[in-house]
Amino acid sequence: MSNDKNIRIVIDAMGGDHAPKEIIEGVVLASKEFDYHLILVGDEVKMNEFLKASDYDHEKISLVHAPESVDMDEAAAVSVRKKKKSSIAVGLKLIEEKQGDVFISAGNTGAVVAASTLYLRTLPFVERPGIGIVFPTLLEPMMLIDAGANIHPKPEHLFHYAVMGSDFMKYVYGQSNPKVGLLNIGEEETKGTDFHKETYAMLENSNLNFIGNIEATDIVMGKTQVLVCDGLIGNTVLKVIEGFAKGAAELLKRELKKSLLCKIGAILSIPAYRAIGKKIDYREYGGAPLLGVNGAVIISHGSSNAKAIKSAVRAAGEYVKKQVNRHIIEDLKKNNRNGNIES
Amino acid sequence: MSNDKNIRIVIDAMGGDHAPKEIIEGVVLASKEFDYHLILVGDEVKMNEFLKASDYDHEKISLVHAPESVDMDEAAAVSVRKKKKSSIAVGLKLIEEKQGDVFISAGNTGAVVAASTLYLRTLPFVERPGIGIVFPTLLEPMMLIDAGANIHPKPEHLFHYAVMGSDFMKYVYGQSNPKVGLLNIGEEETKGTDFHKETYAMLENSNLNFIGNIEATDIVMGKTQVLVCDGLIGNTVLKVIEGFAKGAAELLKRELKKSLLCKIGAILSIPAYRAIGKKIDYREYGGAPLLGVNGAVIISHGSSNAKAIKSAVRAAGEYVKKQVNRHIIEDLKKNNRNGNIES
Repeated sequence: MSNDKNIRIVIDAMGGDHAPKEIIEGVVLASKEFDYHLILVGDEVKMNEFLKASDYDHEKISLVHAPESVDMDEAAAVSVRKKKKSSIAVGLKLIEEKQGDVFISAGNTGAVVAASTLYLRTLPFVERPGIGIVFPTLLEPMMLIDAGANIHPKPEHLFHYAVMGSDFMKYVYGQSNPKVGLLNIGEEETKGTDFHKETYAMLENSNLNFIGNIEATDIVMGKTQVLVCDGLIGNTVLKVIEGFAKGAAELLKRELKKSLLCKIGAILSIPAYRAIGKKIDYREYGGAPLLGVNGAVIISHGSSNAKAIKSAVRAAGEYVKKQVNRHIIEDLKKNNRNGNIES
Repeated sequence: MSNDKNIRIVIDAMGGDHAPKEIIEGVVLASKEFDYHLILVGDEVKMNEFLKASDYDHEKISLVHAPESVDMDEAAAVSVRKKKKSSIAVGLKLIEEKQGDVFISAGNTGAVVAASTLYLRTLPFVERPGIGIVFPTLLEPMMLIDAGANIHPKPEHLFHYAVMGSDFMKYVYGQSNPKVGLLNIGEEETKGTDFHKETYAMLENSNLNFIGNIEATDIVMGKTQVLVCDGLIGNTVLKVIEGFAKGAAELLKRELKKSLLCKIGAILSIPAYRAIGKKIDYREYGGAPLLGVNGAVIISHGSSNAKAIKSAVRAAGEYVKKQVNRHIIEDLKKNNRNGNIES
């Protein structure tokens, strides 16, 4: 635990639907559970307002002032150009200047991706970073990458995502030789567009544990631990699952209203629903790493509450301690030597 | 009902995971419920084998022999080129030669799309047909189009899908002025790729009831009655929902095993689960129209059972009786005059 003291986790206090309140509460929670040094970035007055209410170890949490903040629906490119003093920009500069080890934000995803790429630049061999979301399956947790950072990827971008996703699942989740799949509309090698076919060939020639095309029906079955796709489809997949979960719960509620017995039954089964809710609750999953930037960035869900931020701090610490980026660079090098990257 | 006698519904007896058994049983079921004339196309020997077992009105069901059949995983283009006597080809030729009014197949979707386009060609103004899948939402049923026929669409293709989907929901489902949405990764007009932006502009300038971009989280909420997207994403959305439904059920089963009370509870709530199951069961929804071909084609799920085929027959009859294609041509003409189709 002692080394944990030396890990500096920078948190965007102003990003997210419930910022700064839930963010700061989450950081305070984290400060009680972990030894990391936590650096909150945002409007100093507002941050102090929420902090003075709660008691916490002042050794563990420090503040850095950022006068501006990026709105959740603000155009990413514009925000990066115009708001050089936003909590996102100031936070990432701390990482760039090695005054912090990892940055967490539940703010405007597009802005975080754009600013991270601008301030931290990308790892060697990597052209475009990707958002990797880890979620549960009927077997092991699986990372879907890219979940929306790159909606115009080249095949080699997906190849990089596969390498980076494999290393993340290997070193942070302890999965040995994670299975990698390519999300496609059919399992046969010939399915999909030319983009899919080129990506398929690249993955097959690599030293990754590539098992072929995976159809979306099989995502939840846990056939792979890493599933690569373009950001447009990845983002859609996540939103469908999120929406369907909400919708199914609502449908169930309506049906149960129709009969007292059903309702009693449902009440008795509540613990089961709770367990499932916990399983599919992204808040348990600590946010999504932005893999491929030359630094550690964790993107949390916009609706993150204190609990979600605490899990994000845990994930961020692991990301740094397991030196995921160092492993990624080594593995990209290896693959590059094998001539699997076209550039 | 008397006019129903004049409607000739052609069914591919050899297509689907459970063909010909379930297909033929479904047609027999349909013959007891509807007055349509039903024409089964497939291997005469096999068809008779299954038919002689069941009693049915021989006036209502007739057979047309097709010596070949297309495998479920056969490459579509090849099957069309090489199997000119497949049940799909023979069935579609009946429609082409006006010896049938609508064709139903639960077979190889790619082969049905390719053969339909080859034998029937497309409606005026339409370049590429689209598969429209109707499924339930928390409000009204919604058609998602395209669900996989066209993975390289142009913006005007999606515009055609919007017009055709609106007419289908209007005349078959009785929805007045259906709301149309564009599936995108954000609600703002500026979201997505150039493809999305061009499609957005085209829909906004049309006389459709276009309400803007829809995120996948909102699909199940029923914000629109028609949702257009490219075939790659549409196909993925459907498969995610299908897979997630399976996975959620499995998760629930596992959790319930853990406690007797939970299990008793679940048993009491079974009627609610059944009701939901029925709501999200594609078998209730009678297959998906292939909109844009110059003729009526209904594509049923590969795993269709007798009940699904019976629902498909119902949907096929409605499609013909409501003269959906005539309305589509009129509306495409109108929109064309308004200069909304770039061609």
